[in-house]
Amino acid sequence: MSIIKMVLVVRMDIGMGQGKIASQCAHAAVECFTKARRGFLSYFTARAWLMMGQPKIVLKVQTEKEFLRLYETAQKSGLVTAAIRDAGRTQLKPGTITVLGIGPGATEKIDEITSHLRLL
Amino acid sequence: MSIIKMVLVVRMDIGMGQGKIASQCAHAAVECFTKARRGFLSYFTARAWLMMGQPKIVLKVQTEKEFLRLYETAQKSGLVTAAIRDAGRTQLKPGTITVLGIGPGATEKIDEITSHLRLL
Repeated sequence: MSIIKMVLVVRMDIGMGQGKIASQCAHAAVECFTKARRGFLSYFTARAWLMMGQPKIVLKVQTEKEFLRLYETAQKSGLVTAAIRDAGRTQLKPGTITVLGIGPGATEKIDEITSHLRLL
Repeated sequence: MSIIKMVLVVRMDIGMGQGKIASQCAHAAVECFTKARRGFLSYFTARAWLMMGQPKIVLKVQTEKEFLRLYETAQKSGLVTAAIRDAGRTQLKPGTITVLGIGPGATEKIDEITSHLRLL
């Protein structure tokens, strides 16, 4: 297991199709990566993460409430986060929160707040 | 429709699960973005793409042959490309090609080579 990773947490209660889930996860990953590059320490974490082959895990939550609670916890723990809102041009209502990206960050720190979640 | 986009082309003949597809698409998106940032013109394209909200479309192909032909065509057309190979720690044989990222690039140019493909 790698010491740095990114997790992408998908909200399952809004009926996204497979393509929508994939594009929203891609969006979260790019957003988290660009955010990480702007910080001083997180810049090096992001570089290391790239060199390690970008390890990432896709997890799921069942409700918006669960999503928002996790988002808050991740922010408080100082991890890089990105909560993606859909532009709503296709399947969803504009502004619907879809995927939460956390990291790249220390696996230990990310596991502390996400290890109870199930894989997508 | 935006004038710059990224497409993520998923290979459907290897039985990837939803989480695997999402993580491979995220991988392709980050890889394409970092590649684009290293080029002179593509750097500005990548910046513009970010500012436009990262438009991206997820498409599919049914065979490795179709995947490789598209990869070659995209490379010849000068677009940024990234063919993702799975590390093979979980569902797939190590080295299996999974997702092709194309762009960020001019929508017109990308459509020329991908408009025949179906949405995932």
